[in-house]
Amino acid sequence: MTEWYQTLKIYFGTDPFFLALEYLGTFAAAISGIRMASIKHFDWFGAYVIGFVTALGGGTIRDVMLGVRPFWMFHSGYFTCTMIAVLAVWLFGRHVIGERITWFIFDTIGLAAFTVIGIQKTELVLGSECSWWLAIVMGTITGAAGGVGRDILINVVPLIFRKEIYALACIVGGFGYYALHYFTGLHAHWCATVCFVIIFFIRYVAIRYHLGLPVLRGRPKRW
Amino acid sequence: MTEWYQTLKIYFGTDPFFLALEYLGTFAAAISGIRMASIKHFDWFGAYVIGFVTALGGGTIRDVMLGVRPFWMFHSGYFTCTMIAVLAVWLFGRHVIGERITWFIFDTIGLAAFTVIGIQKTELVLGSECSWWLAIVMGTITGAAGGVGRDILINVVPLIFRKEIYALACIVGGFGYYALHYFTGLHAHWCATVCFVIIFFIRYVAIRYHLGLPVLRGRPKRW
Amino acid sequence: MTEWYQTLKIYFGTDPFFLALEYLGTFAAAISGIRMASIKHFDWFGAYVIGFVTALGGGTIRDVMLGVRPFWMFHSGYFTCTMIAVLAVWLFGRHVIGERITWFIFDTIGLAAFTVIGIQKTELVLGSECSWWLAIVMGTITGAAGGVGRDILINVVPLIFRKEIYALACIVGGFGYYALHYFTGLHAHWCATVCFVIIFFIRYVAIRYHLGLPVLRGRPKRW
Repeated sequence: MTEWYQTLKIYFGTDPFFLALEYLGTFAAAISGIRMASIKHFDWFGAYVIGFVTALGGGTIRDVMLGVRPFWMFHSGYFTCTMIAVLAVWLFGRHVIGERITWFIFDTIGLAAFTVIGIQKTELVLGSECSWWLAIVMGTITGAAGGVGRDILINVVPLIFRKEIYALACIVGGFGYYALHYFTGLHAHWCATVCFVIIFFIRYVAIRYHLGLPVLRGRPKRW
Repeated sequence: MTEWYQTLKIYFGTDPFFLALEYLGTFAAAISGIRMASIKHFDWFGAYVIGFVTALGGGTIRDVMLGVRPFWMFHSGYFTCTMIAVLAVWLFGRHVIGERITWFIFDTIGLAAFTVIGIQKTELVLGSECSWWLAIVMGTITGAAGGVGRDILINVVPLIFRKEIYALACIVGGFGYYALHYFTGLHAHWCATVCFVIIFFIRYVAIRYHLGLPVLRGRPKRW
Repeated sequence: MTEWYQTLKIYFGTDPFFLALEYLGTFAAAISGIRMASIKHFDWFGAYVIGFVTALGGGTIRDVMLGVRPFWMFHSGYFTCTMIAVLAVWLFGRHVIGERITWFIFDTIGLAAFTVIGIQKTELVLGSECSWWLAIVMGTITGAAGGVGRDILINVVPLIFRKEIYALACIVGGFGYYALHYFTGLHAHWCATVCFVIIFFIRYVAIRYHLGLPVLRGRPKRW
């Protein structure tokens, strides 16, 4: 690490790389939530709340389960970030948000960024107690739970259960993170980047070629 | 404070003003939940559970996020209070509950009382760490989350996203609380009363004149 | 207690009787969740998640409210158990899962086992602070909340509010537990067994004779 990076780290009280990733994920997930809310004709405050839940819901569940206070309590920046997302949808909404590719990009960036952040935070909080499988589970929850919360609030069956591969991408990405860490011993920044790219790539392939997992057999004869 | 008030405070282990407000809110919110459940033809136990979630859901989420045990664990009074609400709906239901004005009053008292309680409790738990914006956010969550839980359980899109101004009233009330506290330094009881009145008034005006926030633009061209 | 039982207790770090009951409940509840997911044509990963939420959701909520880390964080066995449940539904699904009796058995075993575990865990965590009514409430939440989470995720009104007696069975079972404990002073294993049997029996009678609680009066004249 260069010196200026250390200075930044001290200034922010956390690793700037992961902080930037967290804000990127917050903005992207908020956009994906607000878009959904605008489809359902919510007013702008409702859209703000949906954006907020989509962006910070996963991390809140993660932090509550880890027994620490939710991360957004310590800094009002996440509220501002969500507000900027609402403004962005308001300004550029008609032209940009409707496109399927925009939706994919924001939704997937949110998913991938939060998975990485979830793994990182779980490692940080649990320290040496942290098993790799638990970090992957918590990363997947961080990445996917926000979208599930959004879908529960707008009263539809969560996308994660209906559409292309979501949570499995997070899990594969998490395995990639730990495989890289174990076999090459690379710095967490590199592992995180690879994890992010894996998740993005799997989601891209799944959507591009309409891939999904096989549906479970075993429908009941009668109810 | 007079002496008998101090005695009450020691007896209850908490400020009787806020305790009374909390029970008022619990009763009112429970009524609003039970009414919704009775519309959906739930049995009386289901109605009890919905009433309980509406009344105590917001405070439970607040307490879990603040890292303390939910307040209803320490005293069985909240269960009794919800049970009385079920009885009240059972006895007077046919004549009173159906009126739109009854619904408005109970729903809004619950919202306003819990917002005040949420601000108060957040200040109490976090102490000097507590920023005013966080207290307002936690107050709004305390006030609004119970109703959201109710709507999720009865499987409708939460009212808060569909109808007249809800959460925004809580936020404005919260600002009123802190503005009064900052500029006049009045006792918390007065700030709380003003906050309650502001929320009630905003909700009344919103319902009376069918006010709502503008719906967000940006509907997608295709899905 | 015999000596080999003590050895087992030390080996597992917990009472093997309750550990076995917990795994039995996890497997049964997971089956009931996966069956529901397969009715809704979820893919197998979605079914896995639904199974997981049904099985571990109640206990997670209980642990978070008690202020301890969710129990499944300390051992990957619960993930494996849910995976075996998915496999079982995949293999035997077509022939077995569809039958109403299979559904009843798995659903009820999950409900009864988790209620007992919930009472037990609440007593363990709170110690002498634990009131009997709180233990019963937490047991009921542990037993019933998983199924509510499942129903929220598949976007239906929770079964617990629509069908035969659920949560009331847990409460009656909990009273049985404490009555037995108070009047006879029997060992927790016996109280737990009786509690389990009471819940199972009430559910059986309710389903067999189509018993339900009376629906609450008080429908509104207008909305």
